[in-house]
Amino acid sequence: MIRTHNAGSLRAADAGSTVTLAGWVARRRDHGGVIFVDLRDGSGVVQVVFREEDAHALRNEFCVKVVGEVTRRPAGNENPELPTGEVEVTVAELEVLSEAAPLPLPVDDQVEAGDDIRLKYRYLDLRRSGPANALRLRSRASHLARGVLHERDFLEIETPTLTRSTPEGARDFLVPVRLQPGSWYALPQSPQLFKQLLMVGGMERYYQIARCYRDEDFRADRQPEFTQLDIEMSFVTEDDVIDLGEAIVSTLWKDLAGHEISGPIPRITWHDAMARYGSDKPDLRYGVELTELTDYLRGTAFRVFAGAIDAGGYVGAVVMPGGAAQSRKELDGWQDWAKARGARGLAYVVLDAETGEARGPVAKNLSAEHLGGLADAVGAKPGDAVFFAASATTRDAQELLGAARVEIAKRSGLIDESAWAFCWVVDAPMFERTDEGGWTAVHHPFTSPNAEWVDRFEEAPDRALAYAYDIVCNGNEIGGGSIRIHRGDVQKRVFDLLGITPEEAQDKFGFLLEAFKYGAPPHGGIAFGWDRVCMLLAGADSIREVIAFPKTRGGFDPLTSAPTPITAQQRTEAGIDAKPKPPATAHTGTAGPAAPVADPV
Amino acid sequence: MIRTHNAGSLRAADAGSTVTLAGWVARRRDHGGVIFVDLRDGSGVVQVVFREEDAHALRNEFCVKVVGEVTRRPAGNENPELPTGEVEVTVAELEVLSEAAPLPLPVDDQVEAGDDIRLKYRYLDLRRSGPANALRLRSRASHLARGVLHERDFLEIETPTLTRSTPEGARDFLVPVRLQPGSWYALPQSPQLFKQLLMVGGMERYYQIARCYRDEDFRADRQPEFTQLDIEMSFVTEDDVIDLGEAIVSTLWKDLAGHEISGPIPRITWHDAMARYGSDKPDLRYGVELTELTDYLRGTAFRVFAGAIDAGGYVGAVVMPGGAAQSRKELDGWQDWAKARGARGLAYVVLDAETGEARGPVAKNLSAEHLGGLADAVGAKPGDAVFFAASATTRDAQELLGAARVEIAKRSGLIDESAWAFCWVVDAPMFERTDEGGWTAVHHPFTSPNAEWVDRFEEAPDRALAYAYDIVCNGNEIGGGSIRIHRGDVQKRVFDLLGITPEEAQDKFGFLLEAFKYGAPPHGGIAFGWDRVCMLLAGADSIREVIAFPKTRGGFDPLTSAPTPITAQQRTEAGIDAKPKPPATAHTGTAGPAAPVADPV
Repeated sequence: MIRTHNAGSLRAADAGSTVTLAGWVARRRDHGGVIFVDLRDGSGVVQVVFREEDAHALRNEFCVKVVGEVTRRPAGNENPELPTGEVEVTVAELEVLSEAAPLPLPVDDQVEAGDDIRLKYRYLDLRRSGPANALRLRSRASHLARGVLHERDFLEIETPTLTRSTPEGARDFLVPVRLQPGSWYALPQSPQLFKQLLMVGGMERYYQIARCYRDEDFRADRQPEFTQLDIEMSFVTEDDVIDLGEAIVSTLWKDLAGHEISGPIPRITWHDAMARYGSDKPDLRYGVELTELTDYLRGTAFRVFAGAIDAGGYVGAVVMPGGAAQSRKELDGWQDWAKARGARGLAYVVLDAETGEARGPVAKNLSAEHLGGLADAVGAKPGDAVFFAASATTRDAQELLGAARVEIAKRSGLIDESAWAFCWVVDAPMFERTDEGGWTAVHHPFTSPNAEWVDRFEEAPDRALAYAYDIVCNGNEIGGGSIRIHRGDVQKRVFDLLGITPEEAQDKFGFLLEAFKYGAPPHGGIAFGWDRVCMLLAGADSIREVIAFPKTRGGFDPLTSAPTPITAQQRTEAGIDAKPKPPATAHTGTAGPAAPVADPV
Repeated sequence: MIRTHNAGSLRAADAGSTVTLAGWVARRRDHGGVIFVDLRDGSGVVQVVFREEDAHALRNEFCVKVVGEVTRRPAGNENPELPTGEVEVTVAELEVLSEAAPLPLPVDDQVEAGDDIRLKYRYLDLRRSGPANALRLRSRASHLARGVLHERDFLEIETPTLTRSTPEGARDFLVPVRLQPGSWYALPQSPQLFKQLLMVGGMERYYQIARCYRDEDFRADRQPEFTQLDIEMSFVTEDDVIDLGEAIVSTLWKDLAGHEISGPIPRITWHDAMARYGSDKPDLRYGVELTELTDYLRGTAFRVFAGAIDAGGYVGAVVMPGGAAQSRKELDGWQDWAKARGARGLAYVVLDAETGEARGPVAKNLSAEHLGGLADAVGAKPGDAVFFAASATTRDAQELLGAARVEIAKRSGLIDESAWAFCWVVDAPMFERTDEGGWTAVHHPFTSPNAEWVDRFEEAPDRALAYAYDIVCNGNEIGGGSIRIHRGDVQKRVFDLLGITPEEAQDKFGFLLEAFKYGAPPHGGIAFGWDRVCMLLAGADSIREVIAFPKTRGGFDPLTSAPTPITAQQRTEAGIDAKPKPPATAHTGTAGPAAPVADPV
């Protein structure tokens, strides 16, 4: 090593030693003939003192090597805020390892720079303690999770990333293959199929911190490539996977957030989560539950509610504690908020703080009886506001109220930002209606119906439940999984319901169906969104903060300028425009009806 | 868990316990009313005994659950070759978890099947102990290496795989970007640029078990995607990286191969390796060194040798111990061997076992004096054969002799297959001539010249040496690295020599050159070919054996049939045929001169 000591490790006990340090000039202060420099390396900062002229040339972020003696700082000059604050290094030799041009981005924890400039000069950004610590935390999180898994006899197995497009693959990245012009790989959205094949292969306990890919809009805080901690186990029940997930989460939060998760993480069914919180990833750091009023308001003359009730739908409410004190403008603001979410508005009443009398737009539409019992029905007190939602589609109304619940918590300051609230959402529905009137899998088509539904999910697909579970932290889904279908007959029935034809199934993942013919074991697993887990642990507000070289929302990398146009020569060499022999007409490269994907063997 | 015990864990001490097992029917033997089944799970095998009819339906590889009592086997029926051989489980309940159709690939350690069928049914192949153990070994190898690195404060950092094409990128896989039609990512051939940027960012110690991609011929045992253990360190010298490499290799070989590497791994310079072994990855499990005869034979009338010597080239020899005993047909076989390698032949003499007299085609062309001293000059004994090579290009002749050396070792049975011989090959040349008369980087263009050459490599590029090192095991390069250039001025001079124009450098990795302006630290690293390391540890003869789902030589996956043609709709959706605005004419998709790659920002 070019250095003998880490800068951040020096203490009073080192006084008198001669040390060689190497790092960066973090700050320079001239005091007459003496120049003080904060020298920073990966371990921290120490003050180094120059009495020679040559230090005048040093500028911020020069990379230097110094040889000097560790001395105690003069009494009164100690810096108690710095671990090395009792000492300084008096420099005898200075070597500039490399110079730094004027900085486009100050390396200063106090300065906030825009995302674009931070990503363009990410190597300068990473010299700041916040971004550097976020990557350190991520490294440690992965190490801790691996520890839990290896202790439990899991095997780390790498699955392919040059693979085959799947039906969920509408957002697959495609990769042309030079050696087989006209043929393309797809980058996987997850190792799902391969981890199931590993279970069929008897590997029994698999994990991987796996890179996954999705070519889609980055509206939410998404990246075109992302990482999941991917796990699969054989001969397990839902409880086994949940226990393992809790072991991982407990270890991470204890070590990295100083938070002890006491006892089992609470489980809530998907239907309860929707009914109580209007969300399948409820934030349990605060109360404020939804109340269903469908029965209570049955017979109302108010057209909006009556319509929903008559259609077999739902009417419900959520209470904003103290919400009656809001100004007219604030109450109007809720209407704008609801419209921005695509709702027509947000019906409400406010309860007079003194009398408890219900006022507001909805009040005049409800009967005296309905109004009189309302506060009791929804658990509101004088001074509260009550927001309503009604829809023929229960889920739509619940989700609107659920979003209002989150907004209420924010506006009313109900969120304890230091709290950690976890839950498992279990018993998720198997299927939901598509816009076209068919069915789609809520999780994915390999999810097993639970024991109650496995033999009859076709009877009531909308009510059939799956062995599917998500783990939620502070309103963020951080992981999810399921017990898989391991019987070929059940898998085929699910495909039938989803409208995946035997030909399509055979074409797209015939290999998985084939594998299931040969003694597939019962199996299940879970995947954690690793970027999100690390983001929460780091207390960051974007997954970009825990990714070494993230892309911006458009999938653009300001550092390397990727992606780029390619040349005609690259197109030719990569075989991008090659037309494979069979079927020759399916690859003209022009828009048109999708030709069936042919199997080249 | 569906089971209470692992099948392979049962011992005599468990006799009397009731256990639930789950696994696969490995073998079934009917003995009248009693049926014996070898039940296999991930932990091993145990014999289970059925006295009921229902076991008649069991066939190989059915996945079953059994409940039964562990009993000691009757005296004399123990199987000492099985860890569970003292017991059996008498089954009270049987549940078939899933059935198995007749097997296309027998799950039998004794049966050798073809690669194509093994890969197509990889999930059956993995139920065999050999393939399963290879994946277990790989998981453990990764775990051990991570242990060494975390103990030394390395951070695991994930670098992007959707990135930008580089000049070495002639074999880059390209990926069209739906959201920016006409723009493409490239899959990285290594994390090289990003790991160097992490060093500039002050991360100091990075590692990653990284997926890398190369779209090229798979002549050798190559895969389009492969894995390297990738490492980079700041403020280090070559010795630091070599020490770390040895720590990793020692840990792996001790734990996984039971081989203790005593003391430092020997280092040999690149030039010595070529001179003594005719290879930059010499197999040191055996002797048989090359002897240079250029000076010894100077003045010879033999045209083949004289021509090489006069051209400033090289003549040398390698001895095959006992080679004089070869038949004429065997000696002719060497000519065919040499021609298959592209040489014109392989000159030789044989030394009579009795008299030591030199005979053979070359003997009559050499003077009595040259013949008389030959045995001493090359260290041959009566009964040996001496093979010669001569070329105006020293390296060509050395490599031919080096290949002959390996072949001699094989044909003469000189290789101790149980031996492990490691070495570091250091002081590699910086540059070599291209066919066009320019220079190319032997390692990569970011490799630093050593202290002796850094300021003057332009004077004699062919002799300039790099801080570059490879680690070799039994003739296989298993890792390599270098100290990098951290000074922008040196990097520019290297680009100049390589004929990379400033515009090209700026366009392709201007971001790295830009980063070097801001106090880049001295740094270096190493990458281990992880597939190869695991292959050697597993005693396998192909990297495919240590990859969960490998592809065949053409990059084809017999299991999923990837890659596949894509549909016109996929082409359109992925924006494959989109023409980006600037420069509109560069992307016509027809062959033609390469247009400059435009930077889209």
